[in-house]
Amino acid sequence: MTRPSQRQPDQLRPVRITRGFTRHAEGSVLVEFGDTRVLCTASVEDSVPGFLRGKGQGWLTAEYGMLPRATHTRSAREAAKGKQSGRTQEIQRLIGRSLRAVVDLGALGERQITIDCDVLQADGGTRTAAITGACVAVRDALNKLLADGTLATDPMTDFVAAVSVGIHQGVPVLDLDYDEDSNCDTDMNVVMTGSGGLIEVQGTAEGTPFSRTELNALLDLADAGIRRLVELQKSALGG
Amino acid sequence: MTRPSQRQPDQLRPVRITRGFTRHAEGSVLVEFGDTRVLCTASVEDSVPGFLRGKGQGWLTAEYGMLPRATHTRSAREAAKGKQSGRTQEIQRLIGRSLRAVVDLGALGERQITIDCDVLQADGGTRTAAITGACVAVRDALNKLLADGTLATDPMTDFVAAVSVGIHQGVPVLDLDYDEDSNCDTDMNVVMTGSGGLIEVQGTAEGTPFSRTELNALLDLADAGIRRLVELQKSALGG
Amino acid sequence: MTRPSQRQPDQLRPVRITRGFTRHAEGSVLVEFGDTRVLCTASVEDSVPGFLRGKGQGWLTAEYGMLPRATHTRSAREAAKGKQSGRTQEIQRLIGRSLRAVVDLGALGERQITIDCDVLQADGGTRTAAITGACVAVRDALNKLLADGTLATDPMTDFVAAVSVGIHQGVPVLDLDYDEDSNCDTDMNVVMTGSGGLIEVQGTAEGTPFSRTELNALLDLADAGIRRLVELQKSALGG
Amino acid sequence: MTRPSQRQPDQLRPVRITRGFTRHAEGSVLVEFGDTRVLCTASVEDSVPGFLRGKGQGWLTAEYGMLPRATHTRSAREAAKGKQSGRTQEIQRLIGRSLRAVVDLGALGERQITIDCDVLQADGGTRTAAITGACVAVRDALNKLLADGTLATDPMTDFVAAVSVGIHQGVPVLDLDYDEDSNCDTDMNVVMTGSGGLIEVQGTAEGTPFSRTELNALLDLADAGIRRLVELQKSALGG
Amino acid sequence: MTRPSQRQPDQLRPVRITRGFTRHAEGSVLVEFGDTRVLCTASVEDSVPGFLRGKGQGWLTAEYGMLPRATHTRSAREAAKGKQSGRTQEIQRLIGRSLRAVVDLGALGERQITIDCDVLQADGGTRTAAITGACVAVRDALNKLLADGTLATDPMTDFVAAVSVGIHQGVPVLDLDYDEDSNCDTDMNVVMTGSGGLIEVQGTAEGTPFSRTELNALLDLADAGIRRLVELQKSALGG
Amino acid sequence: MTRPSQRQPDQLRPVRITRGFTRHAEGSVLVEFGDTRVLCTASVEDSVPGFLRGKGQGWLTAEYGMLPRATHTRSAREAAKGKQSGRTQEIQRLIGRSLRAVVDLGALGERQITIDCDVLQADGGTRTAAITGACVAVRDALNKLLADGTLATDPMTDFVAAVSVGIHQGVPVLDLDYDEDSNCDTDMNVVMTGSGGLIEVQGTAEGTPFSRTELNALLDLADAGIRRLVELQKSALGG
Repeated sequence: MTRPSQRQPDQLRPVRITRGFTRHAEGSVLVEFGDTRVLCTASVEDSVPGFLRGKGQGWLTAEYGMLPRATHTRSAREAAKGKQSGRTQEIQRLIGRSLRAVVDLGALGERQITIDCDVLQADGGTRTAAITGACVAVRDALNKLLADGTLATDPMTDFVAAVSVGIHQGVPVLDLDYDEDSNCDTDMNVVMTGSGGLIEVQGTAEGTPFSRTELNALLDLADAGIRRLVELQKSALGG
Repeated sequence: MTRPSQRQPDQLRPVRITRGFTRHAEGSVLVEFGDTRVLCTASVEDSVPGFLRGKGQGWLTAEYGMLPRATHTRSAREAAKGKQSGRTQEIQRLIGRSLRAVVDLGALGERQITIDCDVLQADGGTRTAAITGACVAVRDALNKLLADGTLATDPMTDFVAAVSVGIHQGVPVLDLDYDEDSNCDTDMNVVMTGSGGLIEVQGTAEGTPFSRTELNALLDLADAGIRRLVELQKSALGG
Repeated sequence: MTRPSQRQPDQLRPVRITRGFTRHAEGSVLVEFGDTRVLCTASVEDSVPGFLRGKGQGWLTAEYGMLPRATHTRSAREAAKGKQSGRTQEIQRLIGRSLRAVVDLGALGERQITIDCDVLQADGGTRTAAITGACVAVRDALNKLLADGTLATDPMTDFVAAVSVGIHQGVPVLDLDYDEDSNCDTDMNVVMTGSGGLIEVQGTAEGTPFSRTELNALLDLADAGIRRLVELQKSALGG
Repeated sequence: MTRPSQRQPDQLRPVRITRGFTRHAEGSVLVEFGDTRVLCTASVEDSVPGFLRGKGQGWLTAEYGMLPRATHTRSAREAAKGKQSGRTQEIQRLIGRSLRAVVDLGALGERQITIDCDVLQADGGTRTAAITGACVAVRDALNKLLADGTLATDPMTDFVAAVSVGIHQGVPVLDLDYDEDSNCDTDMNVVMTGSGGLIEVQGTAEGTPFSRTELNALLDLADAGIRRLVELQKSALGG
Repeated sequence: MTRPSQRQPDQLRPVRITRGFTRHAEGSVLVEFGDTRVLCTASVEDSVPGFLRGKGQGWLTAEYGMLPRATHTRSAREAAKGKQSGRTQEIQRLIGRSLRAVVDLGALGERQITIDCDVLQADGGTRTAAITGACVAVRDALNKLLADGTLATDPMTDFVAAVSVGIHQGVPVLDLDYDEDSNCDTDMNVVMTGSGGLIEVQGTAEGTPFSRTELNALLDLADAGIRRLVELQKSALGG
Repeated sequence: MTRPSQRQPDQLRPVRITRGFTRHAEGSVLVEFGDTRVLCTASVEDSVPGFLRGKGQGWLTAEYGMLPRATHTRSAREAAKGKQSGRTQEIQRLIGRSLRAVVDLGALGERQITIDCDVLQADGGTRTAAITGACVAVRDALNKLLADGTLATDPMTDFVAAVSVGIHQGVPVLDLDYDEDSNCDTDMNVVMTGSGGLIEVQGTAEGTPFSRTELNALLDLADAGIRRLVELQKSALGG
């Protein structure tokens, strides 16, 4: 089997993480997984949603969008349609949950971090790139709060990164691009911490159901890929 | 460890599947997982959405709702708010994908099956009960089309059922009710076919990340639970 | 003239009132008028809408919905369409007005009762069944508040019930089912108290206008029907 | 009892019907019931809604609106809020039904009449003024279609007018203005044809329930009032 | 060149300004530019939007609407469509800015003036008529606040009026009606104060671009037209 | 007077035009006016909106958006709010009109060009940067259609560019950044063709009205600035 992308089954696409991509946000990261490019910003506000007010803890939430021509053919602008699709909402809920898993909301105090992940160019794996980039953006935003004394202790407990895996012509492969994703029988997104704990596993059979053996092979691939992504996050942060 | 529900870790709640619960729909099933009660109807229409017109194949889609007072405290009616929540959309997309995995849309011909899953009473696990009940409702609807000669061959390729599993005080447990769900570290929904293939695996760490070992224990529990649910589906169908 | 339903002109459909149909709501009643089945819940909240805050009185409001496949052919889900139809709003306003007519909002104190009437199966007369069932659900909810000492005096001043009447092939008939409703020249919904006072009279000529004589015959029928419904409410409440 | 308006119990407010109030619409009537002023236009289009296409018959529908400052204090603009209230929808459905009762849709052919009733100034009874004015606007629009030969036979079968009645301090009174309406125990809108047939009767107890005797007194008042309104319609039309 | 309207190039349409057109609003003006008729009301409320609360200054905002049959063919009701068009929003923002330019919001105190401009009949130039009429409505509303002692000093610093100009068959013409507007190469709306200062200049090439020379000729025309409109405003106010 | 930006009154910010910024769109340009960065894509579709179908001509439209954290403080996502603001609609209508002024829609044939202008970072002048960048994106898209033979003749008749000008402390200045814009008395956006014709002039007094003399000085500045921008467009296109 040769992947459409010519990559090895366990090979990530070239990953680039550019910090400080825009200048207003407390954290602003352009993350690229091959041709997939997502701008992830982390914005800090000194207030929390109503349901948390006065409870002495913070909140972290995420929103996701795609520019209309991020895709091969133009897709309708959600702001013009007047609503976000089910897919958009599913992805932004996933990003929020993933980041909350590594941020101690009590230590954050009564402030909110809003992550915006906007896809400038899509070629598969936008949600996993988004989570991987958002982690760095949140890290940058928190570093500012620590540096200026707003926070005394770091609320971030670990790194978090994500990757997609799938079964292409019977072979488990890592980090699907759009062509591969469209031709996979099974598609799985995995989110893990820097220390190797699982945060989210979302596997879907697109045609034939998958077996426990296949699931395990996919998780092995994802595990190795995410470890590599966390190294890249650390390296982008200058560590 | 004792479960809040006093059940054994691998014990399902009492499951009841009542066919023909309402009389207009081609398939109408009330499914109960303990105190969770979901009305699942399957409606057949002789047309398909625009993107499939003229392609000689059918479609199956699902919608999900909760009556406002299905829950402990009243939740706002989505029709009155003017939009479906992200959670609702996520669930109805999951139900649709799960059922499409066992229906051959080509064999269905140019017709659409719409599944409506409406929660009359909620006590945890509404999406897994919905998938389990919807399978029987679709089976009933297709049986009508086969019986009246509309369809010559059965488009349904297998059964499908779903269950939730989670880690409660360190112990993997099956089929979480609301109290257990609120107190679990990890929560996973698993969808499988009657022949044991995996359709969906959606695991989420609510607090601490989970390990591969835990994941495997949860999948073992789910596998056994779903086998039992498929037996109950077959028995409800008189087989 | 024989009614499509074979009933006598002044004969109600079999009416069943099942209390405690679901377990979370303070009042939960399944009401059946023949094949019409409506789940009516009454939810009590310790706050009132903004326009009543601080005025020492309560509020009672109602919402109405139909499950998509309550009807012969599937109707679109209002939550998915993003708005409630004019018909839905008209009905829920009627239910709210009818119940407010027998509840002393001052005696209720600063709390709100929300009635949800959700049609599980429709066969004509859903709004009149809803009012009749909602009365019992509100009664149950208020009994709880009286029993636990939240309320010292009963805010409910009377029973309320409703029925439809119409002119079918020139003959006034009581409690129209869907077939009869579709074939009536005049259609009227009447809401009355247990002591026989009129709360609402809504008569509509569907084709030929109607006369005062016909109006009077219809009101006589409705009067008798509602008296019977109030007996059934009382009997369901164990009185 | 003296009415706040100093009128006799059976006395209408001064009614003015001004035809040709605006120049684009096929029928355009400003109707005034005292200080209540409603602009009613009838627009003819050569197409019908989808559900009637190809059936050789026409349609008539109505929309209703209030200018934000038609009322004592400014009410929010429905176009800005993004939805029409339940009250608005209830009224426009009533206007549509009332006019359809006197128009033979088959004789209209495949065209649609849209009535727009926009309240320029409100002082009670806007819906009854709207129906009364709309009848004249539709008459004018149909006269144009008859005059230019588009229609050979007149689809309008009768006049239609409407008035409100209520019980004020125990006395049945005709044509309530805003002050009277706010102080009535019972409020009823009656729609009748020129030949005295009833089209709609909508009576509501605002406080105490009403009796059959009161209902009859109110209908007597309405009957006389509507006969007078039809005379005024005819006179405005030059007959 | 002869204008479709037979007017001289620098001739306004007959302008009428009727004060007190409706009775509830603090200021209520019907303004007519030929067949264009706009009802402008100014409503005063004793509160300001959230972003100004406690800042000791007022706010003035405007909303704009067209009755569905104000136009040659019926246009859809924005309240029924559930949103205001881009055109509507553009116009109401322009009206608001224009009036705020002549009202000292500090001197207004913590109160809001809402201007509603509703087009009863459209024949071109609705936005310029609206601004011209709104100025008189605001003047009337403020006079009331001054007369009853609510305000001690007049917040209005000048008059404001507006007119459209365009190039019709090469000739600059003043105050375009609908026919002329549809046939102009360049269309410009100009808003000026009573003392001749420019508030807004919005010029658009509809086909061929325009030159600085043409722009100047158009501004000359507008300047003269607006001076005349301010005279008419003053005269309507009895000055 | 020294500008906050230290620039000369007639000095543009550094302008960069990067073609091919993303790879799916037929034209994709990142335009930067100093710290303002807008991604402009031109998408070509082989169909036109309903009102143009079968008329043998094309259409060009534009949509505009801002990423939530393009601004100093995060602004709410329009897709999440469910509607586009009046400002957004005003800007996208302006971009569309400006580009249509230099594209012969007849020569385009029955196809539509959709321009998407998404602001990645905002520092004043986003609409003028958007128009300037969109011109190059449309040029690239049309060049593709010409190169592959889809079009035989070039529908683009000229270049178009835009710039803002304003009066800062009494001095007319070119190309306002955010700080300058917030402190200007008068603010004007000017759109011109490559050959110097005016397409749009939109001038607004933010405080004191402006005079004809000031208007002329502003137009002189804009004229020179736009000539320079057109040179930069041509140079970016390799001419």
